[in-house]
Amino acid sequence: MKSYILLLFTICTFQLYSSAELDDSLTYVWPLPAKFSSGNNTLSVDPELSLVLGGKGGDSSIIKDGFDRYKKIIFKHSSKSYSVNKRLVFDIGILKIAVLSDNDELQLGVDESYLLLVEKRNGQSIIGEAYIEANTVYGALRGLETFSQLCAFDYETKAVQIYKAPWYILDKPRFAFRGLLLDTSRHYLPVGVIKQIIESMSYAKLNVLHWHIIDEESFPLEVPSYPNLWKGSYTKWERYTVEDAYEIVNFAKMRGINVMAEIDIPGHAESWGTGYPDLWPSPSCREPLDVAKNFTFDVISGIMTDLRKIFPFGLFHLGGDEVNTDCWNSTSHVKQWLLDHNMTTRDAYQYFVLRAQEIAISKGWTPVNWEETFNTFASNLNPRTIVHNWLGGGVCAKAVAKGFRCIFSNQGFWYLDHLDVPWYEVYKAEPLEGINDTSMQELVLGGEVCMWAERADTSVVQQTIWPRAAAAAERLWSNRETISSGNITLTALPRLHYFRCLLNRRGVQAAPVTNYYARQPPSGPGSCYEQ
Amino acid sequence: MKSYILLLFTICTFQLYSSAELDDSLTYVWPLPAKFSSGNNTLSVDPELSLVLGGKGGDSSIIKDGFDRYKKIIFKHSSKSYSVNKRLVFDIGILKIAVLSDNDELQLGVDESYLLLVEKRNGQSIIGEAYIEANTVYGALRGLETFSQLCAFDYETKAVQIYKAPWYILDKPRFAFRGLLLDTSRHYLPVGVIKQIIESMSYAKLNVLHWHIIDEESFPLEVPSYPNLWKGSYTKWERYTVEDAYEIVNFAKMRGINVMAEIDIPGHAESWGTGYPDLWPSPSCREPLDVAKNFTFDVISGIMTDLRKIFPFGLFHLGGDEVNTDCWNSTSHVKQWLLDHNMTTRDAYQYFVLRAQEIAISKGWTPVNWEETFNTFASNLNPRTIVHNWLGGGVCAKAVAKGFRCIFSNQGFWYLDHLDVPWYEVYKAEPLEGINDTSMQELVLGGEVCMWAERADTSVVQQTIWPRAAAAAERLWSNRETISSGNITLTALPRLHYFRCLLNRRGVQAAPVTNYYARQPPSGPGSCYEQ
Repeated sequence: MKSYILLLFTICTFQLYSSAELDDSLTYVWPLPAKFSSGNNTLSVDPELSLVLGGKGGDSSIIKDGFDRYKKIIFKHSSKSYSVNKRLVFDIGILKIAVLSDNDELQLGVDESYLLLVEKRNGQSIIGEAYIEANTVYGALRGLETFSQLCAFDYETKAVQIYKAPWYILDKPRFAFRGLLLDTSRHYLPVGVIKQIIESMSYAKLNVLHWHIIDEESFPLEVPSYPNLWKGSYTKWERYTVEDAYEIVNFAKMRGINVMAEIDIPGHAESWGTGYPDLWPSPSCREPLDVAKNFTFDVISGIMTDLRKIFPFGLFHLGGDEVNTDCWNSTSHVKQWLLDHNMTTRDAYQYFVLRAQEIAISKGWTPVNWEETFNTFASNLNPRTIVHNWLGGGVCAKAVAKGFRCIFSNQGFWYLDHLDVPWYEVYKAEPLEGINDTSMQELVLGGEVCMWAERADTSVVQQTIWPRAAAAAERLWSNRETISSGNITLTALPRLHYFRCLLNRRGVQAAPVTNYYARQPPSGPGSCYEQ
Repeated sequence: MKSYILLLFTICTFQLYSSAELDDSLTYVWPLPAKFSSGNNTLSVDPELSLVLGGKGGDSSIIKDGFDRYKKIIFKHSSKSYSVNKRLVFDIGILKIAVLSDNDELQLGVDESYLLLVEKRNGQSIIGEAYIEANTVYGALRGLETFSQLCAFDYETKAVQIYKAPWYILDKPRFAFRGLLLDTSRHYLPVGVIKQIIESMSYAKLNVLHWHIIDEESFPLEVPSYPNLWKGSYTKWERYTVEDAYEIVNFAKMRGINVMAEIDIPGHAESWGTGYPDLWPSPSCREPLDVAKNFTFDVISGIMTDLRKIFPFGLFHLGGDEVNTDCWNSTSHVKQWLLDHNMTTRDAYQYFVLRAQEIAISKGWTPVNWEETFNTFASNLNPRTIVHNWLGGGVCAKAVAKGFRCIFSNQGFWYLDHLDVPWYEVYKAEPLEGINDTSMQELVLGGEVCMWAERADTSVVQQTIWPRAAAAAERLWSNRETISSGNITLTALPRLHYFRCLLNRRGVQAAPVTNYYARQPPSGPGSCYEQ
């Protein structure tokens, strides 16, 4: 009896300490590549891994900087033990990267595909070692990310190893637009924090930072043409200079991430009037912006002229959501203007949005608008408009049926400030739901998770974004059938746990995966891989 | 009447957007320097600020690396606007640092004093520009931190400026031991995260990382002498190699921070037995460690031999808290051993602690023990013991009255996992409370805030530490009378808000200051300086 109890305890101990072993049948790359095969070998990677470049685009600093960045990530652990034994031989000593095109323009739909091969060098193998081939530098960056995720520090051998080699990966994203919205009006985010977030986006292969710069609460951005606008910032230290904005755009580009700027008009714009009170219809009617004054459109045009220089991305977000026009009607000069122009306030809302669209288009931008504009006056919207869904389901289906392009951000699933949405609902939300026609499916550019910042500042923004943004990132990157079939608790959850811990190892404050509310701290002691 | 309403609105607006202006009568350096005077000039600082070194210790890489680090912090904003106009003249172009001693050993009581002068160069001034003088490189690092806090990016001129110059600062800490405990057993913290925390400690001039490496839940550290010990880690990826530990110690030293390691014995040690089940008295009695076996002390000695090579700090923490010896009595061989040695379990607890202390002392360490050891058998404790208070008030007073040295960590105020302790209670907790005799006061080495990690992992650890750890940091550094007098809501709170936002700007996820529970997200939109 005694030895039985002892045995029982041994079993319990074993279970206690081994329950977080990996399910070896899964592939721990997030998001899951389009096509891949793996083997049964373990290869060691030289901490002095060197880069060999090829192809017309191989000379780009984007690749060299990316390689240096990933080398630091892959070899985070000191390689001190190697320096005492230089004679160690590693299986992978060289990473070859061939980039076929020397065009490094980053735009919607840029080719992000890549081929990644990892195999042991031997007489038979022509390629040998590790090899990334891509049409563009951005495809090569995606390949570098995948390569970094194959590399794992082994605590027994103290070497970085690649398990399950050889690897053959042929990968490309399902959607061209894989976004994250950051709101720097409700809470100012320092430039360094925005950079941390951009860096973390690249780990999940997200590729658009939707920068909701301004809202009713504050106007943090410098606009040289109208220098009083940033007087609407919370304080004189919670601001972005033009140089800051350039730096953010460049930092993002080095990681293959576009920055889509937004000025949300005519609602959500009260802070504009701090610097220019004329933009307010009256002191008691501070938004929507004054539709009756040409000055309003002069300012909008001036902002766009200044922003066009900073933001090379072809899409520009004009907002247009939650416009309550009641107080236009109760402001005498606006009311008179409506009478003079024979407009209802609804007409004036449409007039405002369309006039702003024209300005944006005149600057060479494709306008993006929140779905209310489509819901209210679809037939009058400029046909180039990209409709940005947020209110609920079925909107993209309606938009693409009318020939508009669409971005999916259904708030029930992809608003990250909705803390009660569990990871699997984020994961299962499908941008193509209800859209069966292939040509219509092609009008869905992708989707975006939205980090509205009423209750998220620098202290909590990263753990509100992660790990749920990663669930959306796989939905947007990976093969729909593959990630939609089977029991995702067995196929996706262990991989998401793993990716969350990877983010933690890289210094990103990703929260536990399965707590009832997002960003809740762990409920007790335990392994990252189980929380 | 109408214009009256207009005026009223104007006033409201003014208040809305100007309420976060700084109170200029305060000094926004945290922790507050011992002695300082300031003036009324504003000086601009050259983004190409150069370093001139002097003194016997001026050649140290600790200073050069520190200067490079702080230069990045001070000039976070792009200086693009300068490069187009090189002819701009700045008031401060050189920082001179003179370090008088070339001894860079970092130990308890190392001289951290410094002199910092910042004034405009002119014919009269011999010093000119910015000057730091210190006896040691660590004093110079403290001076660099203060200098960095005087520097502020001005969004109007787009230059880094120093307000209220000239500055004369003569500074040194009140206590030699200003610690933060990190618990890597309840949740594993990746090496990069520990480094982020060490970096943030240096901003508040904390100088001891108390690394509570191991506890009952997991044993993450590699111990070469007993290589199975880290089988007690949660998973094979949640571990620290010996090289990791060296790297942490070196990273901390470069910032003037000692690392005090802890092995908490004989309680809090269940995880030891995963690798060596003989350390458990029985499968049903897994802690305290088996007092009856010499093997137990062989392992302890082996751990200390290995750790002594890694941790040069003279203090080593032996734990000794919360020892429930009940199951010793119900384990037959331990019960027999107690009978043979004529010991109660209380005697055996004392025997264990004292034997461990002897081992530590034999390795050249000064033992630190949690207060239970003092509370239970003070008269038998080795007189070199440093008593670490945690249970409540008055313990340091009792300890120093008996000639022991003491570290203050009263859990009612300085346990950071107690989320309901507001910043001002952390701030007002005084290590010297009730100790009036100067010679006894000198036995209080300082204090430590403790970040127990049952409910804090990588995702929330920084915002649980900050900003409250900063409140304790000022208590430990600054003049007691200065920071204890007056209304701290007016004298300290605006400065703590400012320091919290400084941490945010530097990428540290410090939480809002005044929420009822620590680490709560902001309750609504607003400025960092008011939340």
